[in-house]
Amino acid sequence: MGGDNAPRDVVEGVIQSVRERKSQVILVGDQFRVREAIQNSANGARLNAVSLHHASQIIAMEESPVTAVKIKKDSSIVVSIRLLKEQQVAAMVSAGNTGACMAAALMMLGRLEGVQRPAIAVPIPHAHGTAVVIDAGANVDCHPSHLLQFAVMGEVYTEQIHGIRRPRVGLLNVGEERGKGTKAVQEAYGLLRQANLNFIGNVEGRDIVNGRVDVIVCDGFVGNIVLKLAEGMAQALLDLLKDGYRRGGLSAKLGAKLSRPVFRGLKAHIDPAEYGGAPLLGVDGNCIVGHGTSSPLAINNAIALAERFIDLKVNSLIRARLHSLRLPRSGRA
Amino acid sequence: MGGDNAPRDVVEGVIQSVRERKSQVILVGDQFRVREAIQNSANGARLNAVSLHHASQIIAMEESPVTAVKIKKDSSIVVSIRLLKEQQVAAMVSAGNTGACMAAALMMLGRLEGVQRPAIAVPIPHAHGTAVVIDAGANVDCHPSHLLQFAVMGEVYTEQIHGIRRPRVGLLNVGEERGKGTKAVQEAYGLLRQANLNFIGNVEGRDIVNGRVDVIVCDGFVGNIVLKLAEGMAQALLDLLKDGYRRGGLSAKLGAKLSRPVFRGLKAHIDPAEYGGAPLLGVDGNCIVGHGTSSPLAINNAIALAERFIDLKVNSLIRARLHSLRLPRSGRA
Repeated sequence: MGGDNAPRDVVEGVIQSVRERKSQVILVGDQFRVREAIQNSANGARLNAVSLHHASQIIAMEESPVTAVKIKKDSSIVVSIRLLKEQQVAAMVSAGNTGACMAAALMMLGRLEGVQRPAIAVPIPHAHGTAVVIDAGANVDCHPSHLLQFAVMGEVYTEQIHGIRRPRVGLLNVGEERGKGTKAVQEAYGLLRQANLNFIGNVEGRDIVNGRVDVIVCDGFVGNIVLKLAEGMAQALLDLLKDGYRRGGLSAKLGAKLSRPVFRGLKAHIDPAEYGGAPLLGVDGNCIVGHGTSSPLAINNAIALAERFIDLKVNSLIRARLHSLRLPRSGRA
Repeated sequence: MGGDNAPRDVVEGVIQSVRERKSQVILVGDQFRVREAIQNSANGARLNAVSLHHASQIIAMEESPVTAVKIKKDSSIVVSIRLLKEQQVAAMVSAGNTGACMAAALMMLGRLEGVQRPAIAVPIPHAHGTAVVIDAGANVDCHPSHLLQFAVMGEVYTEQIHGIRRPRVGLLNVGEERGKGTKAVQEAYGLLRQANLNFIGNVEGRDIVNGRVDVIVCDGFVGNIVLKLAEGMAQALLDLLKDGYRRGGLSAKLGAKLSRPVFRGLKAHIDPAEYGGAPLLGVDGNCIVGHGTSSPLAINNAIALAERFIDLKVNSLIRARLHSLRLPRSGRA
């Protein structure tokens, strides 16, 4: 029931995933509205085999996560997490209230062994690929040891899902030199240097999108602002271009027409829908939150991400990597 | 002596400013190199009347500000600030190490009466105009009362320099609802609501570039990252477009050609050089730091900004506004 055009776009995304990968999906939500969406879909017949699990309530995007999860026991988010806890499903995917997904996961599934604070890992596309920002909003205040754990979780995730061996891990800061930044960030620098990571040191705002780094470690306050700015900037620049073409003469208009495939390519490259949502890393269960716009493509990609997350056993790897991190240095040799 | 192509581009920028506005400038730096740059310039003859003040040392971009300012007493930055302190000049402009400018200003000029922490105000261009981010990097850790003062200084600056009456002031946060964010930001929210400001509440990352807000208040850690990301994003998107055109066929190439004026307009709109540098707000003297790239245009615009800063008595207004802020509420009625 989450996202801008739910349940219609969610249903369409599930249809895509069933068609492309024979995904096995249980739709959780208002059974009447979901069934209606299936019937109204041109390809709804493909979902005859899909299970439907009724949930009578909806947690809205603007609701306070913790309160909503406590009160709305029969919301689609809480019911999905319950199905996950009861092992009726292997993963949950939601395009709804991210905070509520995290709150429900924390309360009902708990944390992975050894994790102090779960975090959200979000990909940001750039000219040379994709960088992952962790934490993208779950924790506004972070201790240095939290930042270290984010780095480890982000490394495992990027290795497995983006297929990058020994991804470059950077600490988001206001300068490259050691000793820059807040006290927490300065201390995190020391921890990251000692850990068995491909730590490249401090990185700056511009490095998020220049391909220098694969995993960008920051607290959720900075991460959330960075993420929303990156999305906003892309939109603002496209608006500026559109504006320029509109005010241009005939040749500009022809230029716009001839440039259309290039713009389409650019838009696809930076479209969050292409990136299949973001995992809640560090909770004891496979949870993927989609982008709030939740187009059918975004839902399909989020389901694909969940499937890979399960197959590649990302959570087990995170648990193991964090465990080895806690061993004293001598114990590792 | 500051910036990528100093002193050549600095000299060219000064020539522009003398030609356009009959600016009165004292060039501070290595007299031999500066004189050489003047002689090599096609329009150097115009600078015959310009004074030259020798400074034998240079503070490099990567030097640690406080140490450099203490050791290099005869650096162009320290000497410029000294000229300002001795009232031989009304403002100083530098394209060099921003941190060193701030450190020298703080040590030698001190703070404006009532100011707890000076801050850097930097304009970010967007589709509908320009927003000012304050603090853009001077203070990584901030108390709520610092954020309140940044808001007041940013308001005065935006009113005077950008000509916006009662500019909309927003607190950069991870959500619009009151109660979001770190403890410092939550407390700052309360202070901003009580102050006599056009406070529109919390704003998010995307609001920096969508025209919703004129003054964006944040600590210097977040502000610096935001600023560098915004610049990096603009570059990354232009790179992606260039890449798309290169891989496109003949029609894409023609499209690129016809689009050139549009791209030129976009580039000019988002070029930091157009925005004439950033003021150090809250120090007792008019100090403008230019962008590190410091093209002649950027230098010229930074000098123009300094001239307006002087004429409009921005510092006096900041002092007065901060003073009225400290009056008890009953005292104002």
